[in-house]
Amino acid sequence: MTLTAEQGPTHPKTTIVLFSGDLDKAMAAFIIANGAAAYEHEVTIFFTFWGLNMLRKDELVRTNKGILEKAFGWMMPRGPQKLALSKMNFAGLGPQMIKHVIKKHNALALPQLIELAQEQGVKLIACTMTMDLLGLQQEELVDGLEYAGVAAYLGEASQGRVNLFI
Amino acid sequence: MTLTAEQGPTHPKTTIVLFSGDLDKAMAAFIIANGAAAYEHEVTIFFTFWGLNMLRKDELVRTNKGILEKAFGWMMPRGPQKLALSKMNFAGLGPQMIKHVIKKHNALALPQLIELAQEQGVKLIACTMTMDLLGLQQEELVDGLEYAGVAAYLGEASQGRVNLFI
Amino acid sequence: MTLTAEQGPTHPKTTIVLFSGDLDKAMAAFIIANGAAAYEHEVTIFFTFWGLNMLRKDELVRTNKGILEKAFGWMMPRGPQKLALSKMNFAGLGPQMIKHVIKKHNALALPQLIELAQEQGVKLIACTMTMDLLGLQQEELVDGLEYAGVAAYLGEASQGRVNLFI
Repeated sequence: MTLTAEQGPTHPKTTIVLFSGDLDKAMAAFIIANGAAAYEHEVTIFFTFWGLNMLRKDELVRTNKGILEKAFGWMMPRGPQKLALSKMNFAGLGPQMIKHVIKKHNALALPQLIELAQEQGVKLIACTMTMDLLGLQQEELVDGLEYAGVAAYLGEASQGRVNLFI
Repeated sequence: MTLTAEQGPTHPKTTIVLFSGDLDKAMAAFIIANGAAAYEHEVTIFFTFWGLNMLRKDELVRTNKGILEKAFGWMMPRGPQKLALSKMNFAGLGPQMIKHVIKKHNALALPQLIELAQEQGVKLIACTMTMDLLGLQQEELVDGLEYAGVAAYLGEASQGRVNLFI
Repeated sequence: MTLTAEQGPTHPKTTIVLFSGDLDKAMAAFIIANGAAAYEHEVTIFFTFWGLNMLRKDELVRTNKGILEKAFGWMMPRGPQKLALSKMNFAGLGPQMIKHVIKKHNALALPQLIELAQEQGVKLIACTMTMDLLGLQQEELVDGLEYAGVAAYLGEASQGRVNLFI
């Protein structure tokens, strides 16, 4: 069998289920995703449960929701700037310390890591089942996302080798 | 080499180490496991540490245990109805909210997700080393489980591609 | 193609990103790593974020640091004996209970699990990016580590099948 230039070599697939809404875990996920994309992996991040919160726009979006969905909306952080740490959060002091050292070392903060991932073609999939349950609507989330369920994730992951749950 | 009908095509293997005893993480694990089983993956969930708690019967089972093992037994939740959320637990209000929205959307709650996994032939392995350490006995756990150690897990996982730690 | 004795069969690669600094998760990671090494997998653990704390020497090492890096150094646990549990920590009572049952069952505690991993040739990589951010220096960490970034991790993981994030 010959390999034509058009077909080219296939790129390794790498997937991350981003379940966590913690700042530190989200940073780890995007650092791995951006690293893999730089090595020409086809990278997919599947955002589910609390992981969806970092995809929310930081302004309040007016939507028509039930009371329970509104309650979830109020309680959950809006966007990557609002996330807490999984450890040593100290009522928000921990995230400030982390953001400070990131700036000092000229490292990328989470919003820039997300932007870089989008520039590098990392596929960002929002889990539609979680969106239904928590009452999150597409207009509340940032642009450039795909919307799909667990079947889409499994389709990617079953061809990958590096498949992480974070 | 020819492939006879008896041998058939091999099914992809998918494994999950379910370490967490949180309701939300357990739901994510079973949604992925059930999805993979629906796509004819051979799925194994290896329950270890706090993950074992969702396999406990909800009634109290009389056993002969040391004081420390009894203490673990009292402190740890008995069965999938008793699990807390990893975030926004609010002393049990969070899980009630989640259960409410699940019902409202006709989605499957954790006990039904576990039942579906068993119906679909997902292999549920209870980690015997953790059972020894925490003093959990087989008669305290639900029926239909296999009992094995990390070697059994590695045997499955090393043939799989989607291998998650949750 | 012939396979010479020098080349030998290739061993399966197994990798773990150890992000967590929790005692229970660290134990799970090392039990899997040691099991895989016993089955002749080439195992790599990549320590990042809070996972680095279990590699710290337990004595205080004098270093020249900024105030923020000093603060991180004070707040974070020094070495495997100081880690907390992810659940049921009860201000340190939980870890004591776990250590007690481990001793009672003649199981290996975390310091011994780490030692065994090193004896079995498990590759322990400290994430240099996290070390920069948190101000951890090589003389504060135990001997026998490699120092590298996410690229080294991805190099190993993209050849592996069992790739976990813990």
